[in-house]
Amino acid sequence: MGAVAVPVELRWGDQDAYGHINNVAILRLLEEARARAFWSAPGAQDSGIFPPLEPAQQIWALVADFQLRYRAQLPYQRDPVWVQMSISKVGGASFTIDYALRAAKHDAAPKVTAYSTLVMVDRDTGRPQRLNTEQRERLQDYAPES
Amino acid sequence: MGAVAVPVELRWGDQDAYGHINNVAILRLLEEARARAFWSAPGAQDSGIFPPLEPAQQIWALVADFQLRYRAQLPYQRDPVWVQMSISKVGGASFTIDYALRAAKHDAAPKVTAYSTLVMVDRDTGRPQRLNTEQRERLQDYAPES
Amino acid sequence: MGAVAVPVELRWGDQDAYGHINNVAILRLLEEARARAFWSAPGAQDSGIFPPLEPAQQIWALVADFQLRYRAQLPYQRDPVWVQMSISKVGGASFTIDYALRAAKHDAAPKVTAYSTLVMVDRDTGRPQRLNTEQRERLQDYAPES
Amino acid sequence: MGAVAVPVELRWGDQDAYGHINNVAILRLLEEARARAFWSAPGAQDSGIFPPLEPAQQIWALVADFQLRYRAQLPYQRDPVWVQMSISKVGGASFTIDYALRAAKHDAAPKVTAYSTLVMVDRDTGRPQRLNTEQRERLQDYAPES
Repeated sequence: MGAVAVPVELRWGDQDAYGHINNVAILRLLEEARARAFWSAPGAQDSGIFPPLEPAQQIWALVADFQLRYRAQLPYQRDPVWVQMSISKVGGASFTIDYALRAAKHDAAPKVTAYSTLVMVDRDTGRPQRLNTEQRERLQDYAPES
Repeated sequence: MGAVAVPVELRWGDQDAYGHINNVAILRLLEEARARAFWSAPGAQDSGIFPPLEPAQQIWALVADFQLRYRAQLPYQRDPVWVQMSISKVGGASFTIDYALRAAKHDAAPKVTAYSTLVMVDRDTGRPQRLNTEQRERLQDYAPES
Repeated sequence: MGAVAVPVELRWGDQDAYGHINNVAILRLLEEARARAFWSAPGAQDSGIFPPLEPAQQIWALVADFQLRYRAQLPYQRDPVWVQMSISKVGGASFTIDYALRAAKHDAAPKVTAYSTLVMVDRDTGRPQRLNTEQRERLQDYAPES
Repeated sequence: MGAVAVPVELRWGDQDAYGHINNVAILRLLEEARARAFWSAPGAQDSGIFPPLEPAQQIWALVADFQLRYRAQLPYQRDPVWVQMSISKVGGASFTIDYALRAAKHDAAPKVTAYSTLVMVDRDTGRPQRLNTEQRERLQDYAPES
């Protein structure tokens, strides 16, 4: 299956005083893209790998690290940007998402590339929780095509 | 013509510690809806009443006042919310937008209603600038239906 | 006792593309000022009228309405702005905060004035919950001086 | 001289639905800390290495990359967090800031460590601009102590 790409809307307010999308706002866009690609919608048990991203869930996914490379300035635009994601690594209790954010779906050059490791933890104890077999298999469907 | 309604995407990050869309984030959603309804897209001279909302423009629209009524909690959802807007007043250098934000386009009850006055000012002097005839006429097209 | 004033730090990122503090960010500043003035610090039972503003509390304070008047542009500054607050009304299950945000503590003219009604609700039922006698008395200490 | 540490205030609104400071908000805190440590305050030519971080400046500092490691959850607190920064690398037109964010100034363990490369570019051409001699020397004052 390989990578998945989801559209995310910019907001005028994502701009900073330099009149381009702020580097912090980029991280917000990647958060939203990730949630839409891999978690079920709230109130639904749809096709997400994980149940809805809600505090009442016993297992939380926490961001353990993030690496971002801002390759070009991103001006505000009305059309959504596209965030392509693949899963480059699946560990026992964690997985790594690779991101490429483009101003248009079929642009050659991404504006931002990034990757982040998410760790599954128990909300009460804070301890890492192993991904189950189905989750691991479904995550592996998103392995980057070689 | 009356009111216009535009969809705006929520973000998971718009939630606060109470797990609902934060009251501050609501104001951000209204800002985005307003920009999309009445200003041209950046780099375009499309159907907007005003040119693109960019700092290089000589005339800026500043928010002079805002009144918000939060009628019900708004949980995060994947589908966009809909912001219906009409122009309830057109002054010499200002106009007033009435907003109703709904979780779905055809919901009866809005989650939030609001109105805000925007004042056109010269970016260099900060002085109010009169709306031109075309702008006034086009704004009046959005008068609430009585 | 009358009004209370608390300092709140601006952030460079509170600016929008116009290079001034964004109108939405102002609402965030008022939220922070309010929390610091009337709620105990997290993990403490200090001098706040209400216990720490945490989702685990049974009673939540929700913003029911907000009125803001933006009187002058607020540029980014390193020194904190000062938010003066008084309690203009105490109802059965609600109270109203009046705000004046100034660039410096002793400025004559505020940049923003506002008021908002907060309603106490039960987190599970969503129903209004009456303020208790001590809370009402302490809120009345902040009545505007006449 | 080595590292510099600056306090930055959290906001209640920096929390996400999990009731801890959101990973995106952390990046905002680091942005503010960096601005306060190395840029002059607006309207001043104070001790900053660079002139005020304003769009009217001819040379902009853009974030080229960011690496973050979230080592522990950060709950909201009233006291500021402390961001310690040193300059680990000075290039021709760029420099690298190392960050350690702690819940209290003298905590042993940071909650977050990070580093980011900033590139100086001409605001009109977007081209890299060399740091001048004074800037390079002053940046080198913040080299990590070995």
